[in-house]
Amino acid sequence: MLKKQKREKLQLTKRIDDYSQWYTDVIQAADLAEHAPVKGCMIIKPYGYAIWENMKEVLDQKIKESDVKNAYFPLLIPEKLLKKEKKHVEGFSPEVAVVTYAGGKRLTEAFVVRPTSETIIYEAFSRWIHSRRDLPLLINQWANVIRWELRPRLFLRTTEFLWQEGHTVHADEKEADKRARLMLNIYKDFIEQYLAIPVIAGKKSESEKFAGALHTYTLEAMMQDGKALQIATSHNLGQNFAKAFNIQFTDEDGSSTFGWQTSWGLSTRTIGGLIMTHSDDTGLVLPPRLAPIQIIIVPIWRTEEDERKVRPEIKNIVEMLQKKGLEKIQVDWSEKHPGEKYYYWERKGVPIRIEVGPRDIRNKEMVLARRDTGKKETCNLNSLYERLIFLLNDIQQTLFQKALAYQKEKTKYVETWSDFKKQIRNGNFVLAHWHKDSAIEKKIKKETQATIRCIPFSQKEESGMCVYSGKPSKKRILFARAY
Amino acid sequence: MLKKQKREKLQLTKRIDDYSQWYTDVIQAADLAEHAPVKGCMIIKPYGYAIWENMKEVLDQKIKESDVKNAYFPLLIPEKLLKKEKKHVEGFSPEVAVVTYAGGKRLTEAFVVRPTSETIIYEAFSRWIHSRRDLPLLINQWANVIRWELRPRLFLRTTEFLWQEGHTVHADEKEADKRARLMLNIYKDFIEQYLAIPVIAGKKSESEKFAGALHTYTLEAMMQDGKALQIATSHNLGQNFAKAFNIQFTDEDGSSTFGWQTSWGLSTRTIGGLIMTHSDDTGLVLPPRLAPIQIIIVPIWRTEEDERKVRPEIKNIVEMLQKKGLEKIQVDWSEKHPGEKYYYWERKGVPIRIEVGPRDIRNKEMVLARRDTGKKETCNLNSLYERLIFLLNDIQQTLFQKALAYQKEKTKYVETWSDFKKQIRNGNFVLAHWHKDSAIEKKIKKETQATIRCIPFSQKEESGMCVYSGKPSKKRILFARAY
Repeated sequence: MLKKQKREKLQLTKRIDDYSQWYTDVIQAADLAEHAPVKGCMIIKPYGYAIWENMKEVLDQKIKESDVKNAYFPLLIPEKLLKKEKKHVEGFSPEVAVVTYAGGKRLTEAFVVRPTSETIIYEAFSRWIHSRRDLPLLINQWANVIRWELRPRLFLRTTEFLWQEGHTVHADEKEADKRARLMLNIYKDFIEQYLAIPVIAGKKSESEKFAGALHTYTLEAMMQDGKALQIATSHNLGQNFAKAFNIQFTDEDGSSTFGWQTSWGLSTRTIGGLIMTHSDDTGLVLPPRLAPIQIIIVPIWRTEEDERKVRPEIKNIVEMLQKKGLEKIQVDWSEKHPGEKYYYWERKGVPIRIEVGPRDIRNKEMVLARRDTGKKETCNLNSLYERLIFLLNDIQQTLFQKALAYQKEKTKYVETWSDFKKQIRNGNFVLAHWHKDSAIEKKIKKETQATIRCIPFSQKEESGMCVYSGKPSKKRILFARAY
Repeated sequence: MLKKQKREKLQLTKRIDDYSQWYTDVIQAADLAEHAPVKGCMIIKPYGYAIWENMKEVLDQKIKESDVKNAYFPLLIPEKLLKKEKKHVEGFSPEVAVVTYAGGKRLTEAFVVRPTSETIIYEAFSRWIHSRRDLPLLINQWANVIRWELRPRLFLRTTEFLWQEGHTVHADEKEADKRARLMLNIYKDFIEQYLAIPVIAGKKSESEKFAGALHTYTLEAMMQDGKALQIATSHNLGQNFAKAFNIQFTDEDGSSTFGWQTSWGLSTRTIGGLIMTHSDDTGLVLPPRLAPIQIIIVPIWRTEEDERKVRPEIKNIVEMLQKKGLEKIQVDWSEKHPGEKYYYWERKGVPIRIEVGPRDIRNKEMVLARRDTGKKETCNLNSLYERLIFLLNDIQQTLFQKALAYQKEKTKYVETWSDFKKQIRNGNFVLAHWHKDSAIEKKIKKETQATIRCIPFSQKEESGMCVYSGKPSKKRILFARAY
């Protein structure tokens, strides 16, 4: 729990003392979410949900611009459908919630609450697809899913989470792989440009790929404690599900071929990544492009006479800014002390605070304070709009550049096993050689808790030796401890 | 199943022959939705989902403008929470789906998949609310809910449906009632202005009100078969749930008071009402303000030379219209015969079709066809944009006025029991007197299948006699058979 000090100044745990507790404190102090009475589930509170809505709006548009259409499929999946793809059911059955009673009766066939929707969607696709003309089929849905979680953490690991899941069918392998990679790129642009989180794109190892996929592509982000967060994935499913669900199309020559498929998703987990990338010991820090409130105005007065001067002027300022397009602006008219208001909005991560008192009104100027750097400056009313636009862009860029510099600084090229262990222990990302041997991958994980996050696309071929076994390797891959 | 005739002209069942089958045919022909392999559940296909997205976008904005904030609460409700409000659990327990296994184990406490979220939300509200300053609390969520359905019909009655549910807490009864009525008015404006469905607003009788509510306000719409559809409801919950969930606030004088609450919702069922209000024997008819595609252009050519002339001109026309703000416009470049394209887009209810051939291009004119009336007209390219704007507005108004005239024509003032039975049998709405006696209400339902749809706000007080019992009554109320 947060310690409550006088004047409502909540003292967050410091990152250096307990990163995990700090994370929980930030969420509580910004009032983003809380644990529900249902074990592992969370309540996303209005301020947290507003961030998700902003994310949804942008990503939904990007997905639609890539010719994908939204639809909606049932929450409940007949157990027999889930079992159709062998690896898929093995991967998910330990996590599913099962409905056995409904409408006052015991069901003859149980239903699984969707942990992901490949099976229920592909049953439909098998009926929708007849000929090559029906391809590509490009579908997305925004939905809730349930994966039973024993060690829940708000946003990062919750039994129920919100996400979008895309599902496509193509006429050949090449086109399917192109789509899987295209979606990864759309996620990358979205996450880097809006969430200001730099990511490393790559391919998952065999043991880390999605249950039922041919290849899984992933975006890995570095949190401030040096651990990795898998922030979005895109799967080339090959023909695995098409064969299990009989998704076939008639080709021009009359022959039947199984479709080639992809699926890809991004969830509320991403908000956990957003928090852990930018926030500080004071609380949440939000990139302007996703902030529900970009600018908070704190009016300052002591006497009633001052208030009478300040109020109408602030109203004018807000109207002027809104007219010019700065709509995410709010004034804190509450009766708290200005200092308390500063702390309150800092904890909520609002990018810019404007302080306006009676003297400022007289001088036609005001104080602007940046949440990211804490820097204050005086700004004339005449140049206020332009300055705010500049600052919002600058904060967005600064957050990204800072996170990128941190990621680069803490990503180590490693050649020896002892250095590997040391760098992982120090909370770094490690780029090292590996012989593509799953047994070695397991040993590394057991000894260091580090997993293969991905085989980065950016790594060039080079000859090297597996950091653990000494066997030959052609490419460095990314290891880290992960959420 | 639809009969397939040559040239892909699907023959829908006529309304006069079988209204229920016609409804199913319209949905299939427009490709809006289909039954899922999960009994009672539906798959909302892209075109149907696009209508829901348009509805969501408008309604979400209206809800937010009334100071309500979105949030998200868990899908799963501990059984003991559901049981806290006695009438509520009685109302919903026959319909719920129950999760008894999860994470590979039998659960010690079962979870109910939300049929509505009063209980899970009010448990949180009881923790969030302390003093009068925390009120009013105004929350909405967009979610899926499950109510086990034995006689499913696409959109109208499905085991899973999508909706928004609003939940508010107020300091006194008057303010809560005001909010419940405000939300009903917001729904009314939305449904009349966007869905072009005229509705009758009123209060439910005691036996028809929401399980756990003090008063239920409702909007009732007339379908083309004269049956009523309850299209949205808003409940004044009084203090029932506040007492069950201990939602108390400290008043200025230090005393504790239970909160006064409301809840209100609108679901995908509304799409069923949209279909049944405006569509005809050819297929779907959509009001322009909610149509995913407002204008479809069908290019016409015979020779390749013609095609070379028509193609670039159509591209220019589309660009011009989009630049001016008509974004929901599409060109059917498929290789079908123009006649097939006409049928295809008519079945999908696109409000305006533009036909453009090489002669039209030469004359700088084109043919515009209205989906609602079937009327065609020639329009000069110079006035195209203005004419389209006029037609879109006119179609929107015409659909509403037509439905309103139909509703008025089929709403009968009835004084005698024999006339009552006759008018109900003929598929009319009946305005008649009733003595507020639940036993009589039951008898009427048993003998005629008609229920009290609402006590309309618009009905003035007048002295009369109950149409069944002859006992004195002060107000006419609305009876009808209903979906």
